[in-house]
Amino acid sequence: MASEAPTSNWQELVATKRHECEQKIPRDWLLSADQLALAQETPRVLDIYLPRRSGLLSEVELDLTENYTASQLLVKLASGQVSSSAVTTAFCKRAAIAQQVISCLTETFFPQALERAKYLDEYLQREGKPVGPLHGLPISIKDSFCVEGVQTTIGYVAFLENEPAKTNSALVKMLLELGAVLYVKTNIPQTMMTADSENNIFGRTLNPHNTTLTAGGSSGGEGALVAFRGSILGVGTDIAGSIRIPALCCGVYGFKPTVDRIPFGGQVSGTVKGIPGLVPAAGPLAHSIADLKLLMSSVVADGQAWKYDSAAVGVPWQTIPCSFNECLTIGVLAEDEHFPLHPPVKRALDRAVEALTRAGHRIVRLSADDEAQSLAYASRIAFQYFTYGPHRDIIASSGEPPVTSVAMAASPMSSGPFPAQQGQGPFETILALHAARQRVHEAWRQTWVDQKLDVILAPAAQSTAVAHDTYGWPSYTVMWNVMDYPACIIPFGKASKELDPEPVTTSDDAQPDYLPDEVDGAPCAIQVITPRFQDEKCLWAADIIDRALAVYGKA
Amino acid sequence: MASEAPTSNWQELVATKRHECEQKIPRDWLLSADQLALAQETPRVLDIYLPRRSGLLSEVELDLTENYTASQLLVKLASGQVSSSAVTTAFCKRAAIAQQVISCLTETFFPQALERAKYLDEYLQREGKPVGPLHGLPISIKDSFCVEGVQTTIGYVAFLENEPAKTNSALVKMLLELGAVLYVKTNIPQTMMTADSENNIFGRTLNPHNTTLTAGGSSGGEGALVAFRGSILGVGTDIAGSIRIPALCCGVYGFKPTVDRIPFGGQVSGTVKGIPGLVPAAGPLAHSIADLKLLMSSVVADGQAWKYDSAAVGVPWQTIPCSFNECLTIGVLAEDEHFPLHPPVKRALDRAVEALTRAGHRIVRLSADDEAQSLAYASRIAFQYFTYGPHRDIIASSGEPPVTSVAMAASPMSSGPFPAQQGQGPFETILALHAARQRVHEAWRQTWVDQKLDVILAPAAQSTAVAHDTYGWPSYTVMWNVMDYPACIIPFGKASKELDPEPVTTSDDAQPDYLPDEVDGAPCAIQVITPRFQDEKCLWAADIIDRALAVYGKA
Repeated sequence: MASEAPTSNWQELVATKRHECEQKIPRDWLLSADQLALAQETPRVLDIYLPRRSGLLSEVELDLTENYTASQLLVKLASGQVSSSAVTTAFCKRAAIAQQVISCLTETFFPQALERAKYLDEYLQREGKPVGPLHGLPISIKDSFCVEGVQTTIGYVAFLENEPAKTNSALVKMLLELGAVLYVKTNIPQTMMTADSENNIFGRTLNPHNTTLTAGGSSGGEGALVAFRGSILGVGTDIAGSIRIPALCCGVYGFKPTVDRIPFGGQVSGTVKGIPGLVPAAGPLAHSIADLKLLMSSVVADGQAWKYDSAAVGVPWQTIPCSFNECLTIGVLAEDEHFPLHPPVKRALDRAVEALTRAGHRIVRLSADDEAQSLAYASRIAFQYFTYGPHRDIIASSGEPPVTSVAMAASPMSSGPFPAQQGQGPFETILALHAARQRVHEAWRQTWVDQKLDVILAPAAQSTAVAHDTYGWPSYTVMWNVMDYPACIIPFGKASKELDPEPVTTSDDAQPDYLPDEVDGAPCAIQVITPRFQDEKCLWAADIIDRALAVYGKA
Repeated sequence: MASEAPTSNWQELVATKRHECEQKIPRDWLLSADQLALAQETPRVLDIYLPRRSGLLSEVELDLTENYTASQLLVKLASGQVSSSAVTTAFCKRAAIAQQVISCLTETFFPQALERAKYLDEYLQREGKPVGPLHGLPISIKDSFCVEGVQTTIGYVAFLENEPAKTNSALVKMLLELGAVLYVKTNIPQTMMTADSENNIFGRTLNPHNTTLTAGGSSGGEGALVAFRGSILGVGTDIAGSIRIPALCCGVYGFKPTVDRIPFGGQVSGTVKGIPGLVPAAGPLAHSIADLKLLMSSVVADGQAWKYDSAAVGVPWQTIPCSFNECLTIGVLAEDEHFPLHPPVKRALDRAVEALTRAGHRIVRLSADDEAQSLAYASRIAFQYFTYGPHRDIIASSGEPPVTSVAMAASPMSSGPFPAQQGQGPFETILALHAARQRVHEAWRQTWVDQKLDVILAPAAQSTAVAHDTYGWPSYTVMWNVMDYPACIIPFGKASKELDPEPVTTSDDAQPDYLPDEVDGAPCAIQVITPRFQDEKCLWAADIIDRALAVYGKA
């Protein structure tokens, strides 16, 4: 429940919380004043290579955090070739460094993580076998998940009065039973409904590729931490792009599965539940498709998630045999006139299409003619779903102000009318939105069948990461939430002011302009999409595409 | 849309329609006046064995309709050992006979069916292989499904002005592509929301075991037709028990899958779609578990149903290896004090438990203590969902009166208060009902995990088939729709006035009394339930249980 009237100044509550959080970073993991100053002067913070420069990580720890996939680390962990204590220490240190320069964390619980790692190491030694398929692996999770003994505020000052969680979220239970080590929770935007991970408690997460740019949101802390390699594998949630936007902004892989394939239950949320609308999905961010698959296949496995969360879909993970010679039929999403692509985004997509053509895949250019299939229409459905029902005002209850991106409230409504006429009663609105959404579903189903598509290839967004608080409405991601289609972000290339030197002003004030100097060097990405419940096929095809891009997609 | 003000007397419209339907039964498939008179005098119409007595079916046709499962017929059909024309003719004749005595059909299209059978026979001969896994098999479907060229009225006089369907329902498309032959649509109640399949167009479907008893509903025509062996395999729909009630009343097998595993799209409905509530599922009625599985596995197959219906769940059918020595942990649902079991139902359940115990399975008696797990509470949630939202009054628009069972409007509200306080606004009601339903989900999830259940064994209903218009509220079936759990009806035993001679008056006026003379000989049944999406496991366990009952369950 939202809190009562504020009993003390909200700034005081925040100051206390921040102090507590800072105290949890071990003294000897702190960067020097010089190092901090250097980081503040250098927007491309990854380039100054703080983990090595700081001297806080050993060569082994640098190696563990930089040179392996999660899947590879698990092999080492399961065989005892490396201890969970060593891996956990390495990622805790690196996450602590990340936090000092890009504010990507909310809660840290390093001592508990190291204690658990020690338990797992002893277990392996004693039993001669790992606890589970994720034995000893540190995994980071978005702040909204509950970890026993750790507070969940999701960045609301009002929630600072919440007791530490008494029970684990369903997914947290599963991850622990599978053998994972949890060590940090990651930052989000106030309301979790913007692409800028800023709130009045934990501040603003910065993009490690360029701290003047947004890290994306709402799983922005996850995206930034993974990009910093302060996490090898993270879990976010996505109702409009909240996994995929941080992934594309921070140049990492991200996957929004079909709703409830990963158990979502037991998270703290600021929204009311049960009114028809878009439904969020939990899913992974990582450094490779293999690691996205690892998280999905380990958690979904043989379909036991329903035992932890009654809403979870109890369907096993399907194994699709590797066959990289497979010829895919790839539908390429048309650009939406209301959400024109920035030149680097267009360039990355064109280059991907060219590479996939050379790799022998069949490319089908999808039409932009049918309103029912348009980004603009789906965006307006999503927007109306997000705004039509009852809301809780958790911000006002504490006296804290809305952060900039919340106050700005991005909207797609310059693209056309509300799909359900406004001013109708709740039932009429629900029915009209349902009919509008069915229209989208049906139009896309028909296209899928008519074109015999395997996947859709789409831009991840109109832009790359842009300056803070300018990301705008997430049309290219929310589209797939409207239909609950799985969607995977593959990082691909970088924005370049040399290649695309001309700025572009979008006609729409709400959406970002292309400013070549501002975004130069920012990661680009593509998005791979399949119909609902085809999560396995989405990651299978994304893997094929990712490899084709690696071979044929050199700039 | 509902029709405008009636343009002619509703009785005239009905008389015209009835005449048209009667004309579609070939003259030489009509029973004689003597045979009809005998059938009218004999409530246990199966006992007078009309298919043979009438002389309308050859020995071969009697054999084809009586002595094989659908799976066995398919082997004969695929090998050319028997033609689809022969099988289709046999079932058309038998369905025509059934129609004349138990009014189980709405639309018949025998000539089209025989033409299709001929096409399939020629295809097999020409190509040397069947069209698909259902090659040549006649399948009956509930009236709500659309078949191109055939009218869909679902028993509403207002819908008599509907044009014949221009397109097939999603499932109909799939069945035809799989090789099936469609030949009849089957009768339902006005509104499809009662357990008595009566409407003002097609009249009342009678139970072939005893025509003084209800055939159940809403897929009552299906249940009666299958029981008469006028169909080897039928498809119904179920939102509160509409597959399972006819199955239990008519002594056949029935399966309500998880919603949208069988594509539901493209049916005619009298309800508004999109308001939160219970969602209907399509599923099979048949003479064996094997045939229920046949329909499920053929349609679900490798998960292509989404191509026909954007709402369908694109998840493959899982094959579970046969292992009849498996020891199941079987939770036995407790009797609900508000819905006490009639003696024959209780006897059947007790006998099943005893047989399963002897077969070596582990029996767990589930507690009735927790309100959140009670039938009464789930029933009231369902009832409130059924009644809280906007409704279309399609009855009034034509001037036809409600049939008796619709006018009676069975309700569980004598068992307790509305789960969501009445008089709230739509959003508040939706949220309160959602919370109530989550409570049920969560309580059951916990029980399932704590008790390590494989399946739940439950009565199929409070009663067997009872006198027309007295079935009452379907508490023991709707329970599982509230949670979208798959549920399978297994016929088991018969009511006996010798074994249970004492009448029982239920305290609740709305629910049926036990009247030993009235229901003597009526089929009994049990119900096997698994969690959502465990359709495969439900049928797998139902098969194990069915065989155990055959071996250990003799009365």
